[in-house]
Amino acid sequence: MAKAGKQPRPKAETPKGFRDYFGPEVTQRTEMLSSIAAVYHQYGFDALESSAVETVESLGKFLPDVDRPNEGVFAWQEDEDDGKGDWLALRYDLTAPLARVYAQHRNDLPTPYRRYAMGPVWRNEKPGPGRFRQFYQCDADTVGAANVAADAEICAMLSDTLERVGIPRGDYIVRVNNRKVLNGILETMGLVDDAGRRDAVLRTIDKFDKVGESGVQELLTKGRLDASGAFIDGVGLSEDQAAPVLAFLTSKADEVATTLRNLQGAVGQSVTGLEGVQELETIAELMTAQGYNADRVMIDPSVVRGLGYYTGPVFEAELTFEILDEKGRRRQFGSVSGGGRYDDLVKRFTGQAVPATGISIGVDRLLAALQAKGRMAAEVQGPVVVTVMDRDRMADYQAMVGELRQAGIRAEVYLGNPKNFGNQLKYADKRNSPIAVIEGGNEKEAGIVQIKDLILGAKIAENATLEEWKERPSQIEVPRTQLVEKVREILDGQGG
Amino acid sequence: MAKAGKQPRPKAETPKGFRDYFGPEVTQRTEMLSSIAAVYHQYGFDALESSAVETVESLGKFLPDVDRPNEGVFAWQEDEDDGKGDWLALRYDLTAPLARVYAQHRNDLPTPYRRYAMGPVWRNEKPGPGRFRQFYQCDADTVGAANVAADAEICAMLSDTLERVGIPRGDYIVRVNNRKVLNGILETMGLVDDAGRRDAVLRTIDKFDKVGESGVQELLTKGRLDASGAFIDGVGLSEDQAAPVLAFLTSKADEVATTLRNLQGAVGQSVTGLEGVQELETIAELMTAQGYNADRVMIDPSVVRGLGYYTGPVFEAELTFEILDEKGRRRQFGSVSGGGRYDDLVKRFTGQAVPATGISIGVDRLLAALQAKGRMAAEVQGPVVVTVMDRDRMADYQAMVGELRQAGIRAEVYLGNPKNFGNQLKYADKRNSPIAVIEGGNEKEAGIVQIKDLILGAKIAENATLEEWKERPSQIEVPRTQLVEKVREILDGQGG
Repeated sequence: MAKAGKQPRPKAETPKGFRDYFGPEVTQRTEMLSSIAAVYHQYGFDALESSAVETVESLGKFLPDVDRPNEGVFAWQEDEDDGKGDWLALRYDLTAPLARVYAQHRNDLPTPYRRYAMGPVWRNEKPGPGRFRQFYQCDADTVGAANVAADAEICAMLSDTLERVGIPRGDYIVRVNNRKVLNGILETMGLVDDAGRRDAVLRTIDKFDKVGESGVQELLTKGRLDASGAFIDGVGLSEDQAAPVLAFLTSKADEVATTLRNLQGAVGQSVTGLEGVQELETIAELMTAQGYNADRVMIDPSVVRGLGYYTGPVFEAELTFEILDEKGRRRQFGSVSGGGRYDDLVKRFTGQAVPATGISIGVDRLLAALQAKGRMAAEVQGPVVVTVMDRDRMADYQAMVGELRQAGIRAEVYLGNPKNFGNQLKYADKRNSPIAVIEGGNEKEAGIVQIKDLILGAKIAENATLEEWKERPSQIEVPRTQLVEKVREILDGQGG
Repeated sequence: MAKAGKQPRPKAETPKGFRDYFGPEVTQRTEMLSSIAAVYHQYGFDALESSAVETVESLGKFLPDVDRPNEGVFAWQEDEDDGKGDWLALRYDLTAPLARVYAQHRNDLPTPYRRYAMGPVWRNEKPGPGRFRQFYQCDADTVGAANVAADAEICAMLSDTLERVGIPRGDYIVRVNNRKVLNGILETMGLVDDAGRRDAVLRTIDKFDKVGESGVQELLTKGRLDASGAFIDGVGLSEDQAAPVLAFLTSKADEVATTLRNLQGAVGQSVTGLEGVQELETIAELMTAQGYNADRVMIDPSVVRGLGYYTGPVFEAELTFEILDEKGRRRQFGSVSGGGRYDDLVKRFTGQAVPATGISIGVDRLLAALQAKGRMAAEVQGPVVVTVMDRDRMADYQAMVGELRQAGIRAEVYLGNPKNFGNQLKYADKRNSPIAVIEGGNEKEAGIVQIKDLILGAKIAENATLEEWKERPSQIEVPRTQLVEKVREILDGQGG
């Protein structure tokens, strides 16, 4: 109860939609990001860390309108006496800051500028289960390279990255599509100047993953009854008009040459469309020349994510192995990375279009994939715990952990109240400690220490009474001088 | 010029007081933090990453008062229909979030809880030269351990950390003081219940670094003329009353036993004071038992930073080597880390005092120190650049970088417009590339490539005319099949 006149105690809670990450959750992500950075670096990409805070103006999209421009971003106004302080906001991705950085520093940066960036981004959205308002992104982009060789490089790098972090070849595929091909198709359909129906077609294509070929066909034409029984109005195209869109989405064949021929058929005489097909062909050639065959990087016009946003080639990396979903059903793991070419981003600042292409890796999803593949230990071993039998001999215990650490072994002294020895073992258990070391007064006199193998102990305990357990060899007595050697031996045995 | 009716272009600028970090600035920091994390981990500390955003309420200190509680922090109010949304803010350090995390998760966390955290923090302050509103901190704390063995462990770990990142023994010192000793002295002075004069004494002690012994003496008594000629009022103590404070600050002797005796004399009969001296003695004993002698960790009552904030032992790591300051004068590098015991932080949330002790490393300062010691290359080598002589043979060039990368060599193809070859070499120069690879049509036919040693080339160019330079062996011709081998050879030679 708060006493009268006192401030109530603050609640110890993360804000809604935020969370804390503990131990292995942090170190496994760090490790994965470090492997990814090593690949990016080898490809000639340079690290960039921009500030978490940008002006709302330079983030774009979220310009101040009425009172507070915090639709989608966390934003606040700088305190100035005249009330005209800048509006600042937390970045919502790593691409908008890249555009600002490139525009600001373009005279000092090399062109093309290959950069990678990794870090948290923030979204001011209603949080939901598993949906957080702060999460990590990991991006690589090439700014200032118009050549599709830049896009091909991104695909090769994405493939290398997945293998480097531990996704075996055959368990992933990088799919490539091209917005220009779709543009060509919209041209042949006569929809380029019909913004309303063009956008309706784009929105419909976005549903291809969900509703499939026949669903898209219905939605483009007369409309469709959805699963819930509701009728969804169609775009109102004729079946003939809808045909090229469906030809586009379903043009993938076993041979890339056939796929490309199908696309060529779909775009007809459109110059933009033919350019797009040509780009896909060049990418396919470059990939093959470097040994990235269709089992790793593949031209696949059914990739529709991002087609609305990007202006040229579009990439998506999918993990093809199966996992069990929440309901125990087998399903493919799915997408862990996407990207593409976007040529207009810097123009907002400078007035000049600057070609750019890149990818973003979904850090949490890729981490979950590695855990599903058993590439990341779910539980990480804790430190060796040196227990405290005699609180006046702390220096002795500290000397032990000092020796263990010198030998590269993670170790610590129990620093809580040592009175209750059971609490010390409970602590070691909570830490996932592999070993506890014990040196009471008698041991000290005899020049020995007790080493308790907690992992073997736990196994024995499952099948033994307390009395039996005490007698088992999960606890051994060794000369104090052999402490490090014996601990090492037991650790090696446990690791095996 | 913005066209009429169009939005003006946004300015490409970081907000005031924020900055971008490029290439080595990012990777060197990452590398240093990773070395520090390795030491912390070996000491049994677990990683924690809390969210950047906390409720203003749980950050404390900055409770909403009038309109916007953004004194010192970046804060904003959650959008709720009733206008009563929570106030959120960016964390201003890593300690306040630790208190919240421990209070929130204490039933699941081990006790004691050793944790480390590294990441950016934000301060809403007027930016100045070299003073940014976002910067990195790197902390390690032990929560729930009342024993000073926990403090001693922190000191040992700090010493190990500095050596691990590259500060040699002899170039740093960890100094230890204790707030309880000072409390004992305030007791003997009869100032415990005289909050006004007690705080005045604490503020005066804070100036010890600046004004020295005689300065503090004057400020505690009758006042003092400062350097600018202004008179600073004294606290008004008698010389006898001021004496124990000065005895405390100057009690450091060559032998720790003498230092402790001096402190004992200064605290007189105060129980708190004697407890403080006893704690320092225990720390000194534990350090010596582990081989951390006074050349690494030393009891030094002249350490005054943080004495007002902490409740027990106080630590400071100073780098003792000299650097040249902006004005070319030699001075000691100074402090890179500080910390101490603070036993009341969690109490705000739970009502129960929880003992805690820890340190914070000034990441930017330590990085600057490593640069000053030549431990970090100021400029980092760029990638090998494969130039593009024939844009239709991009696949050939991509194959070359593919082979180089396979061999672990950082390499890239020039992805800009290849028309002007000079631009390609300028690009390689801007990237700090060690080598450029050239394969024109003639070379292709002859089965050879040109390898240009750009580092040797630059050296020669300093002392040669253009004509001479062209003839120099900084450019060699090798069979295409020997590309990787020769590039490796030249890189090895450059590195030597």
